[in-house]
Amino acid sequence: MTDPLVLFMPSGKRGRFPKGTPVLDAARQLGVYVESVCGGRATCGRCQIEVQEGHFAKHKITSSNDHISARGPKEERYDRVRGLPEGRRLSCSATVEGDLVVDVPQDTVVNAQVVRKDADARHIDRFPAVQLCYVEVDQPDMHKPLGDLDRLKAMLEKDWGWEDLLVSQHLLPQVQKILRKENWAVTAAIHRDLDSSRPTIIALWPGLQNKAYGIACDIGSTTIAMHLVSLLSGRVAASAGISNPQIRFGEDLMSRVSYVMMNPEGRGAMTRAVREAVSGLVGKVCEQAGAERDDVLDAVFVGNPIMHHLFLGIDPTELGQAPFALAVSGAVHTWGSEIDLDINPGARVYMLPCIAGHVGADAAAVTLSEGPHRQDEMMLIVDVGTNAEIVLGNSERVVAASSPTGPAFEGAEISGGQRAAPGAIERVRIDPVTLEPRFRVIGSDLWSDDPGFAESVKSTGVSGICGSGIIEVIAEMFLAGIISEDGVVDGSLAAKSPRVVQTGRTFGYVLSDSEPRITITQNDVRAIQLAKSALYAGTKLLMEKIGADHVDSIRFAGAFGSFIDPKYAMVLGLIPDCDLDKVSAVGNAAGTGARMALLNRNHRREIEETVKRIEKIETALEPRFQEHFVHAMALPNKVDAFPRLASRVTLPERRQQGELELAGAPRRRSREERAARRNRET
Amino acid sequence: MTDPLVLFMPSGKRGRFPKGTPVLDAARQLGVYVESVCGGRATCGRCQIEVQEGHFAKHKITSSNDHISARGPKEERYDRVRGLPEGRRLSCSATVEGDLVVDVPQDTVVNAQVVRKDADARHIDRFPAVQLCYVEVDQPDMHKPLGDLDRLKAMLEKDWGWEDLLVSQHLLPQVQKILRKENWAVTAAIHRDLDSSRPTIIALWPGLQNKAYGIACDIGSTTIAMHLVSLLSGRVAASAGISNPQIRFGEDLMSRVSYVMMNPEGRGAMTRAVREAVSGLVGKVCEQAGAERDDVLDAVFVGNPIMHHLFLGIDPTELGQAPFALAVSGAVHTWGSEIDLDINPGARVYMLPCIAGHVGADAAAVTLSEGPHRQDEMMLIVDVGTNAEIVLGNSERVVAASSPTGPAFEGAEISGGQRAAPGAIERVRIDPVTLEPRFRVIGSDLWSDDPGFAESVKSTGVSGICGSGIIEVIAEMFLAGIISEDGVVDGSLAAKSPRVVQTGRTFGYVLSDSEPRITITQNDVRAIQLAKSALYAGTKLLMEKIGADHVDSIRFAGAFGSFIDPKYAMVLGLIPDCDLDKVSAVGNAAGTGARMALLNRNHRREIEETVKRIEKIETALEPRFQEHFVHAMALPNKVDAFPRLASRVTLPERRQQGELELAGAPRRRSREERAARRNRET
Repeated sequence: MTDPLVLFMPSGKRGRFPKGTPVLDAARQLGVYVESVCGGRATCGRCQIEVQEGHFAKHKITSSNDHISARGPKEERYDRVRGLPEGRRLSCSATVEGDLVVDVPQDTVVNAQVVRKDADARHIDRFPAVQLCYVEVDQPDMHKPLGDLDRLKAMLEKDWGWEDLLVSQHLLPQVQKILRKENWAVTAAIHRDLDSSRPTIIALWPGLQNKAYGIACDIGSTTIAMHLVSLLSGRVAASAGISNPQIRFGEDLMSRVSYVMMNPEGRGAMTRAVREAVSGLVGKVCEQAGAERDDVLDAVFVGNPIMHHLFLGIDPTELGQAPFALAVSGAVHTWGSEIDLDINPGARVYMLPCIAGHVGADAAAVTLSEGPHRQDEMMLIVDVGTNAEIVLGNSERVVAASSPTGPAFEGAEISGGQRAAPGAIERVRIDPVTLEPRFRVIGSDLWSDDPGFAESVKSTGVSGICGSGIIEVIAEMFLAGIISEDGVVDGSLAAKSPRVVQTGRTFGYVLSDSEPRITITQNDVRAIQLAKSALYAGTKLLMEKIGADHVDSIRFAGAFGSFIDPKYAMVLGLIPDCDLDKVSAVGNAAGTGARMALLNRNHRREIEETVKRIEKIETALEPRFQEHFVHAMALPNKVDAFPRLASRVTLPERRQQGELELAGAPRRRSREERAARRNRET
Repeated sequence: MTDPLVLFMPSGKRGRFPKGTPVLDAARQLGVYVESVCGGRATCGRCQIEVQEGHFAKHKITSSNDHISARGPKEERYDRVRGLPEGRRLSCSATVEGDLVVDVPQDTVVNAQVVRKDADARHIDRFPAVQLCYVEVDQPDMHKPLGDLDRLKAMLEKDWGWEDLLVSQHLLPQVQKILRKENWAVTAAIHRDLDSSRPTIIALWPGLQNKAYGIACDIGSTTIAMHLVSLLSGRVAASAGISNPQIRFGEDLMSRVSYVMMNPEGRGAMTRAVREAVSGLVGKVCEQAGAERDDVLDAVFVGNPIMHHLFLGIDPTELGQAPFALAVSGAVHTWGSEIDLDINPGARVYMLPCIAGHVGADAAAVTLSEGPHRQDEMMLIVDVGTNAEIVLGNSERVVAASSPTGPAFEGAEISGGQRAAPGAIERVRIDPVTLEPRFRVIGSDLWSDDPGFAESVKSTGVSGICGSGIIEVIAEMFLAGIISEDGVVDGSLAAKSPRVVQTGRTFGYVLSDSEPRITITQNDVRAIQLAKSALYAGTKLLMEKIGADHVDSIRFAGAFGSFIDPKYAMVLGLIPDCDLDKVSAVGNAAGTGARMALLNRNHRREIEETVKRIEKIETALEPRFQEHFVHAMALPNKVDAFPRLASRVTLPERRQQGELELAGAPRRRSREERAARRNRET
């Protein structure tokens, strides 16, 4: 008779095991990661599984709850003390007694911790670099005078199968007290990242320690965002963000590099500032989740090359000038204590690799999150900031570049531009007949022509226009015929509408006439034209390099991507033609990538290998970039190139003939129309 | 035709290599360690070899200088610039052209550094944990934007065969400046100790760095001794010692443990004190050798368990009470920076394993130095301090114990006792007829009955008696019949000699009657009896454990062993019977063992494996120890047990009959004899 077959879901890994094999052992032997802290003593409750009943034709297996051992005394005790949900089993105690389909739930809740509803609820398979291991250590024996630490290591090797354990130096002075506190029972945190490195005891607690956290942090030039993640359950326990305090040294990256070049102490001050901010954020997320700083055992950081360098204490001067040499491009493994991080003194730090001098660990994290290399379609990822990082590719080939868009998309260098903050215009529509605008501002759900709008923005006013608003107003001006394909504001319309006004030798469009008056000037149009040309030229260059005549999907990463309407981005020619259903904003993908690297060390290897494979294109060295750039200045840069978009938008000439809709956009009726409608109804 | 045969001496390793193979490559392939920093550029001069000419019948090989390539332009250039002695070749440039016997000289002098004549000139094969590697790194390339550090690693892997290099965190902020300073030429220090650990770049210099040092340090309770050793040549560049500043917290180890137990801040203060003293010593040896602290890349420390723990910042309280649990017994690998050592910030530290709670890393170092496990004879190693560490064994089996001798052998608990310092009596002879003593004191070459003696000790006086003096005076008192086999001072002799005096209810012997008067009291005799019984009982117990009825050789380690006369030690019964020619003092064997571990990482593995194998005997748990102890109180404890000694000494009864010589001791004539002789001669 053959041994029972055990199939683990969702991995699909399977194997045959003798009756009586604990399900946890079966999982281990198959390389299925089932958490267990207590080492089979049925006290930590981390190893819960569920049996799926039924016949699984595809796998030729019939699974039943009769095929697993009945609840034993250890599970009964755990159920009494901590509670074990109906249907759940502790895989360390339950044994294989027949064919089984076993589900490894990812939501095992222990300690009834508060669970945060995360916007990005992506499931990440766990295989963290830090593992908790509970052991009961032999007491000292004068006949065999092995040191306390040596007996601890021996027991960890015996009970958990570790080999050649190293120990963090800082534990040496503590090990004797910790071992004696709970009668020689302790929980050790073991760190092992690379298979080729030796596992290391990095932390030690008396008795059973049943919690372990990690942080995933994206250090942006403007904002630092952090998740606190349970390494045992994979859940996000808390998230928080803070402004990057380096802003006081310079708004944009290059001015911070200049600051370092001009001030000998500048590098140190900026490194301290960002490290303090990060440590402050750790305090914030720990407080939110009711965790201790000492429970944080691992940390993953991503950031653009300059943030990456400054955080590590590296002078970024070389990144400010050709050949833009990174001090280190590969993944960095270090200690929290080395970068002044106030977390567990044995905690480790991992930083994702940088792709190039202008394409950093944040872009690597976005790539890891979106995974162009994991699928066959041609995927374009765009992360717009002061520069736009562009990654294009599929499982066969991935190329990447940074395009010098400048800060126009972020509202800088725009006369009425401002950050995306309450009071900023974010949506714009222009009536092609009357040339009258309507808009919405951040902080209000109403359009500017809705009743009560003025009241709703009383506290902020209409203070400026943010990145997504700029994209829309320029696109709408174009669709309304206010600007030509060359980007010139048509001064002749000044006769038709008071909105078109002369400003110096050129014309502008008055979007808001309350105080402050917000006018879109000819210079503003030029700034956006330059930015979008740079972005488009970068994308075009990568498409040429990889030999792609189209892209199958587009992902907008980052805050900018979350707010802009992909259709307007396409009208303006920011991105190439693509089925609009396949264009999506993926929010803080860099944070998601960091979380993946935190929870699964295989994802670390994945992105390290991927970054090695990525072909880096330096736009400054490519003559074709200039050509594409010049060609992309027009609005829109050849509609023929956008067949899928063309079917959904009406271009100026058609619009002015009455085909006024931007297909798919939920057009709101104008005030007049609504007034007319109300009149009809009443 | 077969390839030429190349035989390397003194290792005897051999292999066949195609003509044209650089001799250095042949050495590498055979695992013969030939230093090379410049990587075959013929600039560092570290890879010098010599060809031995002649027919070596035993090896069936005829070697000739015609069988190696003629000096090429690279060697000529090196000879012009730095000088290459006649007969020496640079093995990176010289190629195999026929059968060769190659000598790898251990005295390659580069930089003409001052070489210290070391008392212990033992040759140690080099295979250090730190290696210098010179490389010329590719410049940054925007098309392949690998980081500077990543290109450095790639070149080290390509040129030197390293794999999976790690980098010390502290180098990240420096790497770009260092690489650019000498046009992308740098020397990296790579640390790799265990084969299972990944090699790490721990230091980096612009251009060719052609020096690297390590320190080997023995932290004793009383004295800290340090060697500065060139890792490239193996030479001791400087040595120095200093008093352990912890003495202010307590003379002996147990009083220091008590201090920690009574003072919460005591541990920290003692750790700081010893670390500061060690750092001070580093400065001293560096100054002596003209080296920089930054050139020190590796450090090996040994010490007794309490010093070991305090140096590492570990509370030694557990070592002060049964079961004498060590916090850590295995070898400790750490960083200089972790223990506040002011050397190169990337420098590593290795501490030898401790054998047991009372038998420390210093005893392990002595074992490594003397090597009982490397030979077949039964070797006894005795290191006398406050406790005596005893190691006994051969290649088959090794046992070890600590015996509670107390501090009597060091002059403590003896009425006139003092440290071995100028003014202390160190040699004693007693005329068995007149019972008159003669002695020598440290600081003078004269005996007390020599003319000019008083003048020669004018600056110090005769201030007390040190350990070796005590051994001799008790033995001489016994040989002169002043004390009985039971150790009782014979009061009846007071009638015969004014040297025998009543002190309270017992009698004593006046050794020196100048101020301060030095009297050997009955209590002193008892203290020595107890100490020597403990030592002998420990040895006897180990002999029993291992089943040895005799020992083949005896090594006295440490300062005490360097001063005592083995014959007197045997008369008193400190050590078992042994051929006196096989009894030797080995000086600072702990320092030698530390030096071995510093220069050759195989010696680290050797002592780690040996310590695991050593059977630890806890004397307090052995009933037989008490029995042996009681039996060993008599003086001497059964001469029958010392047949080899018996043939060389005359015991009291024979001595008093006129056979007065202790054979082998260069007896000096008494004053009367010399006076009589002078009278005859004139």
